[in-house]
Amino acid sequence: MNDDLFTKYTTIAFQGAHYAFSEIAARRFFGEEVKVQPCRTFEQVFTSVSRGTAHYGIIPIENSLTGSIHRNYDLLLEHDLRIVGEVFLRVEQHLIANKGIDLKEIKTIYSHPQALEQCRKFLTSLNNVDAVASYDTAGSVKMIRDKSMKDAGAIASKWAAQDYDMQILKEEIEDIPENFTRFLILSPKESTLENVNKTSVVFSMKNIPGALFKGLSVFALRDIDLLKIESRPLRGRPWAYIFYLDFAGHMGEERCKNAIRHLQEITSFLKVLGSYPAGNSLEQSNNEK
Amino acid sequence: MNDDLFTKYTTIAFQGAHYAFSEIAARRFFGEEVKVQPCRTFEQVFTSVSRGTAHYGIIPIENSLTGSIHRNYDLLLEHDLRIVGEVFLRVEQHLIANKGIDLKEIKTIYSHPQALEQCRKFLTSLNNVDAVASYDTAGSVKMIRDKSMKDAGAIASKWAAQDYDMQILKEEIEDIPENFTRFLILSPKESTLENVNKTSVVFSMKNIPGALFKGLSVFALRDIDLLKIESRPLRGRPWAYIFYLDFAGHMGEERCKNAIRHLQEITSFLKVLGSYPAGNSLEQSNNEK
Repeated sequence: MNDDLFTKYTTIAFQGAHYAFSEIAARRFFGEEVKVQPCRTFEQVFTSVSRGTAHYGIIPIENSLTGSIHRNYDLLLEHDLRIVGEVFLRVEQHLIANKGIDLKEIKTIYSHPQALEQCRKFLTSLNNVDAVASYDTAGSVKMIRDKSMKDAGAIASKWAAQDYDMQILKEEIEDIPENFTRFLILSPKESTLENVNKTSVVFSMKNIPGALFKGLSVFALRDIDLLKIESRPLRGRPWAYIFYLDFAGHMGEERCKNAIRHLQEITSFLKVLGSYPAGNSLEQSNNEK
Repeated sequence: MNDDLFTKYTTIAFQGAHYAFSEIAARRFFGEEVKVQPCRTFEQVFTSVSRGTAHYGIIPIENSLTGSIHRNYDLLLEHDLRIVGEVFLRVEQHLIANKGIDLKEIKTIYSHPQALEQCRKFLTSLNNVDAVASYDTAGSVKMIRDKSMKDAGAIASKWAAQDYDMQILKEEIEDIPENFTRFLILSPKESTLENVNKTSVVFSMKNIPGALFKGLSVFALRDIDLLKIESRPLRGRPWAYIFYLDFAGHMGEERCKNAIRHLQEITSFLKVLGSYPAGNSLEQSNNEK
């Protein structure tokens, strides 16, 4: 996608073990060549990019079934990084086994409980198969390979199957195929990518009547389209909210600068998180990449 | 809280195993006496209430760290149940062991990976202790009890500790204490509770310029306070969104009826999910119940 900009020396920090969906999303955005840096926590992703240990970070920000990840919005406020890109990824699960094994030989299936949950219909369709929880999806694939288990399978991404050179027994076994995650790309500096056309801001309103309505009017009055609006109550402060807002446009445009200046008049807090090229949320299945 | 209305014959459907946070929230709302009906899936909670197998259902709808649970909003649209109440619960985790065991004897700690994640700082502060993933939190407590394990602990709610008659070795070991979940109470009929003062609606807008701004104006023009607003993109339809909105007021009020009638003029789809008494989001720690 942006292969000319990113090289095999570009390092991307992500949260999770190898073959986590964040790593897959990173490779989708930056190309297969880049170096990745697995981190234990989301906080470590931010720290790593802030300190220059990694050039970019990638974090999930919302999922089509489970919603916005407020924790990562909190970290965007605590750290001084910019959003410079976004990428959407479909969450797919596959049943993986050692080569030469047949589905009817499988007696136990290992995976992270979330992946087991996502494939519940498939698992209940199998007879006399135990679902066993493990710490991560790719780790389950590694375990059944290392132990050459003949009566066990694991649920994980197809990247895990490829890398451990294992067989995909059954593809796309998740109950709800319309499961997408949106990831943000973080950098210490503003985006230098082409086609920057989307901006994310976070703000809270002064406690005035119809505050949110007035807040949105600064965009409506300038014909700026809103792409996301979400309120989140501030705990311990009834009627006080923080708002997440994405709009079409970038901070180099006069009308967007004017809207934000206008918004500042009525907000008690405002932070522009960055302008970046909108990702393609309609991208096809990962299998077609 | 509403003990006069609910008896030991009132049955509440919830998703999860016994001592899941949903069951705890149900008992907080309905009182300790009520019967609970654990369900494997959220869908089964809806079906159970629709068919009258349970009188009420309870579902988590949003969490202060992980956001709105879109999947349950989808089910609210697919089924014809009413929201009749809400309750907030703080997510607390505790280290639990057999009686007479000391913290320094613990070599392995079992729990659901999500609970292990939530307590990562505590776990890394212990030396030479393995964290082992299991299928559910309360099940881990039961296992270390049934096997009388002397070198193992489990992370779970204090209700699990109480019910299995186990020792809480260390209280509130979660990394981020400000972790609250909002639950909704579902019924086939409108709320008969007192102090109904909050209404939830879902709608999508006609594709007209400044649509959302116009949608919010129907409330602003009538001085109706908004308590939640969230947009969710409709997949495969760029620029098409569904909105979740909570406002202060109930559908028995003339100004609310007028606002909804006005909103219908500019929406392509609108569903009032129910009017109910707002839960107390400032409720103190579960320990003080």
